[in-house]
Amino acid sequence: MGPLPESITNRSYAILGTGALGGYYGACLQRTGLDLHFLLHSDYEHVYEHGLVIESPNGDFTLPHVHAYGDVGKMPACDVAIVALKTTQNHLLPKMLPPVVKNDGVVLVLQNGLGIEEEVAQIVGSQRVMGGLCFLCSNKVGPGHIRHLDYNQITLGEYTSDYRPAGITERMRQIADDFERAGIPIELTEDLLFARWKKLIWNIPYNGLSVVLDATTDELMADQHTRSLVEQLMREVIAGAASTDRIIPDRFIQQMLDYTQKMTPYRTSMKIDYDEKRSLEVEAIFGNPLRAATAKGADLPLIRMLYRQLKFLDTRNRSHAV
Amino acid sequence: MGPLPESITNRSYAILGTGALGGYYGACLQRTGLDLHFLLHSDYEHVYEHGLVIESPNGDFTLPHVHAYGDVGKMPACDVAIVALKTTQNHLLPKMLPPVVKNDGVVLVLQNGLGIEEEVAQIVGSQRVMGGLCFLCSNKVGPGHIRHLDYNQITLGEYTSDYRPAGITERMRQIADDFERAGIPIELTEDLLFARWKKLIWNIPYNGLSVVLDATTDELMADQHTRSLVEQLMREVIAGAASTDRIIPDRFIQQMLDYTQKMTPYRTSMKIDYDEKRSLEVEAIFGNPLRAATAKGADLPLIRMLYRQLKFLDTRNRSHAV
Repeated sequence: MGPLPESITNRSYAILGTGALGGYYGACLQRTGLDLHFLLHSDYEHVYEHGLVIESPNGDFTLPHVHAYGDVGKMPACDVAIVALKTTQNHLLPKMLPPVVKNDGVVLVLQNGLGIEEEVAQIVGSQRVMGGLCFLCSNKVGPGHIRHLDYNQITLGEYTSDYRPAGITERMRQIADDFERAGIPIELTEDLLFARWKKLIWNIPYNGLSVVLDATTDELMADQHTRSLVEQLMREVIAGAASTDRIIPDRFIQQMLDYTQKMTPYRTSMKIDYDEKRSLEVEAIFGNPLRAATAKGADLPLIRMLYRQLKFLDTRNRSHAV
Repeated sequence: MGPLPESITNRSYAILGTGALGGYYGACLQRTGLDLHFLLHSDYEHVYEHGLVIESPNGDFTLPHVHAYGDVGKMPACDVAIVALKTTQNHLLPKMLPPVVKNDGVVLVLQNGLGIEEEVAQIVGSQRVMGGLCFLCSNKVGPGHIRHLDYNQITLGEYTSDYRPAGITERMRQIADDFERAGIPIELTEDLLFARWKKLIWNIPYNGLSVVLDATTDELMADQHTRSLVEQLMREVIAGAASTDRIIPDRFIQQMLDYTQKMTPYRTSMKIDYDEKRSLEVEAIFGNPLRAATAKGADLPLIRMLYRQLKFLDTRNRSHAV
């Protein structure tokens, strides 16, 4: 980044969901002097008293004092409200969002999957929605205690109704500036839907098969049969994207395979959720893309099979937990 | 059965693989006075000394003395050699079969899956091969100790090269008589390939999904997503059968679903093999039907996905066992 643009003001941010993702990004932003407001659930008391602790290869730091809330009703309306919940909590958004975002503010959806911005637009209007795709490895290791492991980039795009490509807007640049000052590289995209499909090329095969086959990424890559299956699933994601007029070149598959082959053996986020007996984001990552493609007349049989296997496992996993 | 036909003679039978299936059928046959010869591996010493013990809802019985062998070289050539090994042992057949079947004898393949008779025909000639499909629930509970739980019917058909329908032959009737005198209902089929595809309609979805999803038949039927997946897999088996000119009516799917719905919750034989860390019959039940359909230009994407998932799990399951 060059010198700060003159338009920088002290924007206020609400973080809805102060976990491994929201807690990490929010803490990085607050450290640069921005005005942050954190919504918490189970960790509220602890964070209210002790603040946030971040471990990171970029440097550990502590924020002893943060604006912590257990109730959106007590939060101020902010310039930017970041949705950092799991999508399985999105039924809470109609109550949660309206109080925390200014009339000329924006909701930034930092969630996985497809179609989430449409749901948010129903609540706050489509002119107040952006989406972001996070490439982040971090875990919550205790109340208000987050361990950032690797990566932190975000791809940021404006939402418009029907996901028409929207160009790069001034408010995108402003938010990108805030994040980049906080050490978080931002890529701006003119086409949010394209970026979301591209991310699904990784998420659909690896998140799905890691749960169904109880496998890490390296195990899936080492076996010729699962490697072929990963590749076929990626081809179906490309077909799904094409059905919504987003053309992802075939060579992107080989890039993703090579990238994953070189990765440290990795337990996917969906597998971690499964092992912790938390709800899986099956609808956002599998159900919504399937429905979007089906509505356009595309058939994605392998993704549908994976979806059904995951729905079965998710239901049983949580009924055992009770 | 009516009075015994006059053609009955004291046929000799070799049982290759004296486990839950071969041990049960062989013991039933010997009890009627037929001349039986049992090949054993790990249980040889025990059965040589103590014979076989059968528990069955049709009546428990013991055979204190049986002709037990640890080596095919010591067995006499028989009128009928019954292949009752798991298909994962079929690489042993080229050495095992020739000594135990008379020149005018027949090899009866009582195994799951498709295409096994072709392999046997390569060894003994296609005019000496029959196939049988067993509808049997039984377990081996100790050395030479078999617990028969339910069902025992066999569907029997002649093998001809390329599985051309072969009619009902005299030797089929003779073998059927032997089994029926032993209390085992026999259905004769003119079209072995048709019967094998029909059985796969059950085996492919339930055996496969029970392993991949660690599920019993009742769990797979109770969940709407896996129930739909079972049904779709059945449709693909019907498409595979059609590619080899065997037309199974669609209504057969509903019959199989209803039948399974009413069954006692059941752990499939493939799941039992998996839990015991034995090799899975993936090639016979999934690989061979896939290859047969592909050779005829049919695409079975869901069965292929299940095949790949099973290959991965089977390999890992046995590498962990070492």
